[in-house]
Amino acid sequence: MSRELPTRLGELVAAIGPLDAAAMTETAARLDQLTKPPGSLGRLEDLAILVAGITGNPAADLDRRAVVVFAADHGVAGRGVSAYPSDVTAQMVANFLRGGAAINVLAGMAGAEVIVVDVGVASPIPSVGGVAGGGARFVSAAVRRGTRDLSVEPALTLDETAAAIDVGADLAVELRGQGVTIVGTGEMGIGNTTAASAIVAALTGRPVRDVTGRGTGADDATYERKVGLIEDALARHRPDPANPIGVLASVGGLEIAALVGFILGAAAGAVPVVLDGFVTAAAALVAARLSPTLPPRLIASHRSTEPGHGVVLEELHLEPLLDLRMRLGEGSGAALALQLVTAACRIRDRMATFDSASIAIPRAG
Amino acid sequence: MSRELPTRLGELVAAIGPLDAAAMTETAARLDQLTKPPGSLGRLEDLAILVAGITGNPAADLDRRAVVVFAADHGVAGRGVSAYPSDVTAQMVANFLRGGAAINVLAGMAGAEVIVVDVGVASPIPSVGGVAGGGARFVSAAVRRGTRDLSVEPALTLDETAAAIDVGADLAVELRGQGVTIVGTGEMGIGNTTAASAIVAALTGRPVRDVTGRGTGADDATYERKVGLIEDALARHRPDPANPIGVLASVGGLEIAALVGFILGAAAGAVPVVLDGFVTAAAALVAARLSPTLPPRLIASHRSTEPGHGVVLEELHLEPLLDLRMRLGEGSGAALALQLVTAACRIRDRMATFDSASIAIPRAG
Repeated sequence: MSRELPTRLGELVAAIGPLDAAAMTETAARLDQLTKPPGSLGRLEDLAILVAGITGNPAADLDRRAVVVFAADHGVAGRGVSAYPSDVTAQMVANFLRGGAAINVLAGMAGAEVIVVDVGVASPIPSVGGVAGGGARFVSAAVRRGTRDLSVEPALTLDETAAAIDVGADLAVELRGQGVTIVGTGEMGIGNTTAASAIVAALTGRPVRDVTGRGTGADDATYERKVGLIEDALARHRPDPANPIGVLASVGGLEIAALVGFILGAAAGAVPVVLDGFVTAAAALVAARLSPTLPPRLIASHRSTEPGHGVVLEELHLEPLLDLRMRLGEGSGAALALQLVTAACRIRDRMATFDSASIAIPRAG
Repeated sequence: MSRELPTRLGELVAAIGPLDAAAMTETAARLDQLTKPPGSLGRLEDLAILVAGITGNPAADLDRRAVVVFAADHGVAGRGVSAYPSDVTAQMVANFLRGGAAINVLAGMAGAEVIVVDVGVASPIPSVGGVAGGGARFVSAAVRRGTRDLSVEPALTLDETAAAIDVGADLAVELRGQGVTIVGTGEMGIGNTTAASAIVAALTGRPVRDVTGRGTGADDATYERKVGLIEDALARHRPDPANPIGVLASVGGLEIAALVGFILGAAAGAVPVVLDGFVTAAAALVAARLSPTLPPRLIASHRSTEPGHGVVLEELHLEPLLDLRMRLGEGSGAALALQLVTAACRIRDRMATFDSASIAIPRAG
């Protein structure tokens, strides 16, 4: 498999090592000195320890946060697999830039910058004009104006796929250079749960119906069309599960490919990656097939209502932090989870110790 | 049952009506105009609608938040049912006041004031001295210096129980007068999961073992002692499940009684109440037995690792927002959930509408 990897990707994969056990032990010891029964903050404590393992720093400061929303369109959207028309992708990008979307609100609460990356939006992005705060940074990096219709031909060429992966990987490196210490993943692309379901079915061998949901709100007829279309596409393209880049090219998307590069780039830089919903999980699954040491470096923010999301989380052995029946995407779940990661780090840093507070330590078990 | 209620409590109970359906409908309509697929933010949207129902205000501003930590000791703690000695209650109160505890960190993130109420701490509270920020407001309202040992006699008299309930109810009214718009419940009291398990077993008829856990970290021997002691106490006192105040007196605690009054007082004032862990849930169960219209006005923050917590949440038909294997108490889970409630309100208030953002609305289903 690694023979087929572009050199760049091979370097990223090689840079993703195991978690730093010494840093984790140090953080765990610190947590046990704090004025609470050992382990009583449950997964918040696990998170603090995981952050140490990912960053190699038992006191990692994650105060510079960003949620990156990769946006692109899908040729398959013309087949009536979504409740929304393709134009909504560009309209929502404008909404992100104006600060009017859910991700703006939730990232704002998490103290995270929103960065919107056009990897392949098909329609012109409406003019935003002067925006007074609450918006997002825009990165223009379109590889092509939307994918081809995966129901009739491969969505992307291998070159296009590699270029989109590079967009994500480059941005991860750039953000790290700018001092960003933790990233949330997000996406926007009408039709992209169709691509995500196709990817997950191709890589896991699970029946299409098991990994396909209603996206942002498909009705029964739309759902049946979506399942049938994915089944037909997989039968036509026969993507090889041992070749994750090939799967990505034949039934993926530009934003999904960029997410693969972004996740690998961030992980290679020891930056914690907070996944969002099903589409970002599908990208993480592709990335994990390229880098088996990747999954422990991922933080699963939530479990969405998409059935394929749970399948991917199981494959990656990730337990989501939240289960709030969300199915929006954009990075909305990642932004909520960023607050939990911040809470974990503040618990680690700001609580008194038994010693400093003159509190009796627990009796030996 | 209501014949036995003190007049004050009867008035509170009478003031707790059903949720405001009109306000809920108005908020739901507002949410469906926002730039996201209808319902796609799942439980965040449910929360915004619930807040409207509780407050009667479709645009309720919940920006003045408080977490109230009721603290008291338990005579039964001398029987070796906890991993910690009773003195820790007073030491932790001092820690709250200095700002060194988990609740200080987590309430700080939620923008909530911490208020610590001494309803019956047995040991002198260590001097705190000048504290530079991050601390808590202190309310001195001890009814008696800890309960009697429920394993040999009733924990409280009915008068003491009523006085402790009044402490909580009075504070709820006072905070509402000060402009507090949402409250989180918290507690501190070494030994209080023993009292909570006894209350829940008495009120639900469930076997003691089904509703008893390891509290803050009891070992096997301590756990077995705890279960046996509660079984013996219930066999001795035979509290009548139809008389919740009697149950509270015989096997309860001062902080639990204060929580009962606080929950009823806040609900009577249309203030949303965010429950914390098992002990606050036990208090909510007592309150719900006094006021059948109470439960829909409660927000369950999380499910702790205490088995009795899940039992109470089921009894109250409450679905917790978080499940992070926490078991600390103090209001730590409530503080985390306050951030989700805030997120729900900000989504409602700050997102653009399809109309204002010129975004295509979804096709009719």
